[in-house]
Parts: sequence; C-alpha cells; structure tokens
Amino acid sequence: MDFVQDYYPDAFAHCFGCGRLNAHGHHVQTRWVDGEGLATFEPKPYHIALPGYVYGGLVASLIDCHSIGTAAAAFAEAEGVDFTDEGEGDGAPRFVTGSLHVDFLKPTPLGPPLELRAWPVEMGERKVVVASELSAGREVTCRGRVVAVRMPASMGA
Amino acid sequence: MDFVQDYYPDAFAHCFGCGRLNAHGHHVQTRWVDGEGLATFEPKPYHIALPGYVYGGLVASLIDCHSIGTAAAAFAEAEGVDFTDEGEGDGAPRFVTGSLHVDFLKPTPLGPPLELRAWPVEMGERKVVVASELSAGREVTCRGRVVAVRMPASMGA
Repeated sequence: MDFVQDYYPDAFAHCFGCGRLNAHGHHVQTRWVDGEGLATFEPKPYHIALPGYVYGGLVASLIDCHSIGTAAAAFAEAEGVDFTDEGEGDGAPRFVTGSLHVDFLKPTPLGPPLELRAWPVEMGERKVVVASELSAGREVTCRGRVVAVRMPASMGA
Repeated sequence: MDFVQDYYPDAFAHCFGCGRLNAHGHHVQTRWVDGEGLATFEPKPYHIALPGYVYGGLVASLIDCHSIGTAAAAFAEAEGVDFTDEGEGDGAPRFVTGSLHVDFLKPTPLGPPLELRAWPVEMGERKVVVASELSAGREVTCRGRVVAVRMPASMGA
C-alpha cells in the first residue's frame, strides 16, 4: 500500500503535520507494514535546535502525526476494514491526539534522514495508545507515546 | 525586562522554535513576570490540524521552547543571577529538553492569540521541571510538562 494519510478524506487533509492539502506543512507519510507504522522524514536545514541538531519541536510533530496515522491503520486492521478500498467506506479512521509524550534520549543529528517506527500498545473502542522511536543514522535518539482518541462527531468525523 | 530568548548567546539563538537568528522559525518569546513565564503567539493560517483548529505539533513546539525559556529564567533567579546584565555573565542559562508532555484537553480554536503560562514545579542543580497551560480566548485548551536539563558541556554550554 501507499500512505495512510492518502486515505484521509479531503476535509481532514489540511493538517500542518501530515495533510496532503497543506501547502506549507511537513507532509508526514505513514506506511503500515506488518503491524508497524513506518515513516521517513528529511528535516530542512533550518529545522534545528542548535546548529547540527534537529529541533525537538519538529520531532514532537513527526511523532504526533505518525502515531495518529499508525493508530488509524492499526484500528482499521483490528476492525477488519480495508480503508484503501475506495469503494468500501469513507477512508482511514480519524483520530485526534489526546496526549503526546516525547523522551529526548540524546541529541538528534541533522543530516541523515529521520526514521520513525510506531506500534500500538493498547487498543480500545475509543482510543489507541501508540509507542514510537525516532532514529537518525540507525541510532534511536527519541521515544514517543501518543494517546490517540477517536475523533468526536462534533469535529465532523 | 524584555524576552529571555534575547539573552541566549548568538551560538544558541538559531532554534527553529525560539531563536532570534532563525529566519524561518516561530520566534517564541518568554517574559519572566513574578515567578511565571508568559508568552503570546499568533499562529499562521496554515498552522492547523483541521480547518479552524490549531495544529497540536505547533502547541507542542510552543510549550517546549517557552518552558525552556521559563526554566532559564527561574534557574537564574534562584541562583541570584541577573542574566539581563550584559556585564555580569554570559547570558541566560542554557537548558535542553529532556522530556515533553502535552495533554490536549480540547481543540484549540484558530483565531485568538495563544497565551502561554509556565512555572517551575521542581528545581534541582541539573534540571528544572516546568508545568504550563496554553489558552485561546481565555480558555485553557492544553497543559504541558517539560523536564528541562542543563545543557551538557559537550554541546557547548
């Protein structure tokens, strides 16, 4: 398959972190492979905390959107829904971030592409808890934990 | 006084979140007033999660940099250092983010300026724990907790 975010309905594709329709955003793209969400991201030269090191707020943004995409894919799989089948439904399930936690284990060097892995550690009817790791040059520099909550109907889901 | 970030030495003023020398960044600016860090931020129209709502990754970035600025000011005050006195030392104490936690209590509307409050809840020789709240239109929508760690000498502090 291609990217989870490709299957968010247009109304939900404006996110600065991962929306394909946001011209200014990061365009995080999550692949769902064998029970894990995978993503690769190349920071811009100005995405720095200090010269030579990636900005932690960018890391938080990547972990946020990638974890939400992973929650959507994991939830769909658990429900037996193929959200990539355009005829079957209305796209990937929509989640919002209930909480976001990032542990910065060591500085993340600017240069190598950032690799993200994420996986569900708890799954309920209303929420999915997603753990994640971010690596640069094969070294894990940050760990994340996101509580993803099914989007309330009041927000249009 | 003016902003804590004005007193980071030039080598530490390139942060995408708060560096005055980063031409592309958010330029978070922290005022230290009566034991609290205060900041105001106006999101761009494209800083959205969904149309009408502020992007959570931006909130995480604001809480991150504002908490680090607050930690610097609180630490200096506790040490009896006036870092705004150009003759006295080498600027504001430098901290890095050890961990970042954000609880998204409700959606943050795009429109009113975002107001941030942050305050130290624990202070040690090597770290300051900073709690925070983000409001839009006087309503608190997010809470943060950041563990700020004195920057290791290996990073130039």
